[in-house]
Amino acid sequence: MPDVSLLEEVVADATPLLGQGKVANYIPELSKVDGRKLGIAVCSSDGGVVGAGDFQEQFSIQSISKVFSLVQAMTLYGEAEVWSRVGKEPSGNAFNSLVQLEHECGVPRNPFINAGALVISDLLQSRLSTPKHRMLELVRELSGNSQIFSDKAVAQSEYQHMARNAAIAYLMKSFGNFHNDVDQVLQTYFTHCAVRMSCADLARAFYFLSNKGVGLDGKRVLPEKQNRQVNALLATSGLYDGAGEFAYRVGMPGKSGVGGGIIAVVPGEMSVCVWAPELDENGNSLAGIAMLEMLGKRLGRSIF
Amino acid sequence: MPDVSLLEEVVADATPLLGQGKVANYIPELSKVDGRKLGIAVCSSDGGVVGAGDFQEQFSIQSISKVFSLVQAMTLYGEAEVWSRVGKEPSGNAFNSLVQLEHECGVPRNPFINAGALVISDLLQSRLSTPKHRMLELVRELSGNSQIFSDKAVAQSEYQHMARNAAIAYLMKSFGNFHNDVDQVLQTYFTHCAVRMSCADLARAFYFLSNKGVGLDGKRVLPEKQNRQVNALLATSGLYDGAGEFAYRVGMPGKSGVGGGIIAVVPGEMSVCVWAPELDENGNSLAGIAMLEMLGKRLGRSIF
Amino acid sequence: MPDVSLLEEVVADATPLLGQGKVANYIPELSKVDGRKLGIAVCSSDGGVVGAGDFQEQFSIQSISKVFSLVQAMTLYGEAEVWSRVGKEPSGNAFNSLVQLEHECGVPRNPFINAGALVISDLLQSRLSTPKHRMLELVRELSGNSQIFSDKAVAQSEYQHMARNAAIAYLMKSFGNFHNDVDQVLQTYFTHCAVRMSCADLARAFYFLSNKGVGLDGKRVLPEKQNRQVNALLATSGLYDGAGEFAYRVGMPGKSGVGGGIIAVVPGEMSVCVWAPELDENGNSLAGIAMLEMLGKRLGRSIF
Amino acid sequence: MPDVSLLEEVVADATPLLGQGKVANYIPELSKVDGRKLGIAVCSSDGGVVGAGDFQEQFSIQSISKVFSLVQAMTLYGEAEVWSRVGKEPSGNAFNSLVQLEHECGVPRNPFINAGALVISDLLQSRLSTPKHRMLELVRELSGNSQIFSDKAVAQSEYQHMARNAAIAYLMKSFGNFHNDVDQVLQTYFTHCAVRMSCADLARAFYFLSNKGVGLDGKRVLPEKQNRQVNALLATSGLYDGAGEFAYRVGMPGKSGVGGGIIAVVPGEMSVCVWAPELDENGNSLAGIAMLEMLGKRLGRSIF
Repeated sequence: MPDVSLLEEVVADATPLLGQGKVANYIPELSKVDGRKLGIAVCSSDGGVVGAGDFQEQFSIQSISKVFSLVQAMTLYGEAEVWSRVGKEPSGNAFNSLVQLEHECGVPRNPFINAGALVISDLLQSRLSTPKHRMLELVRELSGNSQIFSDKAVAQSEYQHMARNAAIAYLMKSFGNFHNDVDQVLQTYFTHCAVRMSCADLARAFYFLSNKGVGLDGKRVLPEKQNRQVNALLATSGLYDGAGEFAYRVGMPGKSGVGGGIIAVVPGEMSVCVWAPELDENGNSLAGIAMLEMLGKRLGRSIF
Repeated sequence: MPDVSLLEEVVADATPLLGQGKVANYIPELSKVDGRKLGIAVCSSDGGVVGAGDFQEQFSIQSISKVFSLVQAMTLYGEAEVWSRVGKEPSGNAFNSLVQLEHECGVPRNPFINAGALVISDLLQSRLSTPKHRMLELVRELSGNSQIFSDKAVAQSEYQHMARNAAIAYLMKSFGNFHNDVDQVLQTYFTHCAVRMSCADLARAFYFLSNKGVGLDGKRVLPEKQNRQVNALLATSGLYDGAGEFAYRVGMPGKSGVGGGIIAVVPGEMSVCVWAPELDENGNSLAGIAMLEMLGKRLGRSIF
Repeated sequence: MPDVSLLEEVVADATPLLGQGKVANYIPELSKVDGRKLGIAVCSSDGGVVGAGDFQEQFSIQSISKVFSLVQAMTLYGEAEVWSRVGKEPSGNAFNSLVQLEHECGVPRNPFINAGALVISDLLQSRLSTPKHRMLELVRELSGNSQIFSDKAVAQSEYQHMARNAAIAYLMKSFGNFHNDVDQVLQTYFTHCAVRMSCADLARAFYFLSNKGVGLDGKRVLPEKQNRQVNALLATSGLYDGAGEFAYRVGMPGKSGVGGGIIAVVPGEMSVCVWAPELDENGNSLAGIAMLEMLGKRLGRSIF
Repeated sequence: MPDVSLLEEVVADATPLLGQGKVANYIPELSKVDGRKLGIAVCSSDGGVVGAGDFQEQFSIQSISKVFSLVQAMTLYGEAEVWSRVGKEPSGNAFNSLVQLEHECGVPRNPFINAGALVISDLLQSRLSTPKHRMLELVRELSGNSQIFSDKAVAQSEYQHMARNAAIAYLMKSFGNFHNDVDQVLQTYFTHCAVRMSCADLARAFYFLSNKGVGLDGKRVLPEKQNRQVNALLATSGLYDGAGEFAYRVGMPGKSGVGGGIIAVVPGEMSVCVWAPELDENGNSLAGIAMLEMLGKRLGRSIF
């Protein structure tokens, strides 16, 4: 378990990287974020959270929500039902590419690229009457924070710029791999992406991934085997087209979002969340990856 | 450390899978192998090897040699020199595809697809006067077995069917990412692929990957950081287009070859090698993956 | 000018081909068509129409409507306005592929693949208040037949199976190359595709293409240069991924539709329309191409 | 038949375009050419040649040789033998792309992209004992000029930069669509490309294409039907990825080479050759296309 001073060092050492990346600007609402934010939080085996920098400030979790959605789908559906709709392999392509999707008949490569997350959202839509609300319930319970909400302005802004995601959903529908109304699922999906949480919230919420599937409150979130599977998928596909580099530098299963957050897991030990809104060319938080690399190095932690 | 009876159980339980895959037949020499072979060997922290089934019989290591080549290149060149020539990302494509290579200007995705291994061989050719011999020296030393050779008939057979690999090498040459004579490098490459080793040989040879870079004889093969990096690359790209599924099912860094061998690593604990010549549709040993999955399950071992 | 007996011979000689192709079945309404229909009509320089077989029976013109739409757009917009939105090159891909569209940033290869026709429909939508009605006015005027309508059941059926076309439109929208509401443009587009005309109607309607841009009633439809340009585009891109083969066998600019119709032009001499609902693997009328080949051979007509 | 003064006007009007394109520089020998050359020659139905500008100066015909090779192959092999090895469709890709070739199992789209011409060269190699010499015999006979040679320095320079073409040939070999030694066929291919001819030579040599297959000396080069087929292929695929634009602007079957030459055909009337070494972004002569467009406009000639 790292102490506060170590995390403060990490934040200090990452500060010179500010200015080297670019805040996401594909939707106006996201581009308003202050690019100089830096935060880190760790939740370890005793359930305690330590943090440094802006670790208590909430930000748009964006694609990190794809992990929550997958976990929900894995509890609602059988293994075969989920994995006949989406694959488990790295994509080797940009996160929103349609090329592979067309070549592979509408079955997305994995649940962490947009196409895969849309299929997962479609699965949730089929089985939940209020999927937006159920996601909030889940993240509030996992993080022990009832003050978590989805940002309506961000969700609305994403909806107004939905063309690429709509294209992906309709392409899957043309192959029979999307069952609900596209517009409705997109609204659910954008609402999930627009959830705001802090590094502390996220470290707590994903503690179960480092704890064989059991959450902070002692309740089982996923069976042990499925928990390992989620970590395995995060390791091979969690950082878009930068998963190999992330494994090489950081060596932890992880998931990034274009809001600048990254969650990472040291199985058996701890969950981590970093936040720094400026992104590298793969769409991952530039200073965030650096903070995780420093943390792993100083603690001597890596799954490899 | 598993005992012999556990490994014998694994072999017995994998036997019913025989007949479900297909022995590699893209070159005549390889297709002669008996598809009913099954072997497993484990080398653990005390340096001892236990095995079951055909674990002492030598087979064609094929693409497993790509790991030895990468390790050699990492000791001969600086980090920047290696990784400017080849990437670290999963490919999301068949192991011998040229599509991505053309789109990405001749820089292969990672060192474990054919294109990447050819670039690594090109690097070795530039710096070693007798690259074929140096590879044999390395594997003999790592495995502690002086009776390891490359099978000339197999190397010759691969050379006669070199068209696809020649196309890959020339395409990289057209982008300036291949420096030596194509024919000469292909001969080195095929000689490396045609090395014959047993499960026991391979488990011993890759022990260093599970031991922070230090081999069985106590000599350092790779610095600890680079050793972690190799494991990370194996986890994301070691099983061609089946790396995600392998992580999901087995949860160990690994590398397969079309000869039916797979090596895998539990960092800090042990190295494993399985052999079963029949392959699945991704070109990975079908029963081999199953044996690793059983072993991991029974030992409760996974990096996730 | 061919006489009736020659056309009757052509129909008779094409009859043995029935059963070798497949009626389009991607929407239920189209699959109801009788696959044994065969018709041919020729409209020549004196304005007279001769025909044989089922040449007076109306069928779904489908993609042949793309030519009418392009002609409309060319009269409503300047050259630069049209060709900055859509290219002039053959696609080398299936008619509804998204791969090239993504690689080429949302600019379709030509106006005769679906993506291109959707952009053209988007252009029409921007400038016409009643684009569906204006299309009917145009085809009625060009063919001299006031009894031409769009089949609502077919348009409705296409709308219910719009996923692929919606994906294409949204992908273009994500690149900024689609300006109107996707749903509204798709309705216009499907209404155009569902227009029903006979071989006689179509031969008359496209007479202007063989007559330097002047229609049957002596009115100019297109300036002479633009008329040549439309013929040039038809020659290189009119038959999807079968344009080269069509030029090789038939040697006339032409356009096919999945309803089984094909129109073709011998510049300076005549316009032709054939109809046979069974399609080949490129989605072009199998017996239709054969009838055009026979006609060209017997008349000694080809642009080459 | 245009007179000299009209051709001189065309040359004069194209002169302001000099400096807007770029001389081919992918091999050093080609880049030495004077970019300010401009020539045009027309050979018409009475067999006479008129020209203007540098129409009597020989230049490297490069890919124009692909038409001679195809004609040779069509006289040596049956129709099915040729077209089972190479397609007839436009490629929709750069002239030297391997992407489509891999997706379509080693069968090139048409005989005028590099892959297609290499297959045709492979066919010639299988049937001719001295293919290099036979090409010279053919072009000398067709043009009536015994002083035509292949430039050894250019062929040698191409051979030294053969990587991309070698990659293409080996890729086809890996699919079984290339039968001879790659190195030997490449030497033949480069020797063909390096033939030097003038606009006058080329206009004479391709006169048969405008004359139903009969050459200047009255001998039949191709049967009438095959002659039409060659023109059809030139119309849809003769200008790489600029065939559609060329049809739109010029409206004649044609073939370009990176040496800056373009030959074009007005069936039944005349053959034309233009030369201007500066190329546009598709690799076609920039001023050459403009000269053909002006010629067509002033004579009122187009196949459309």
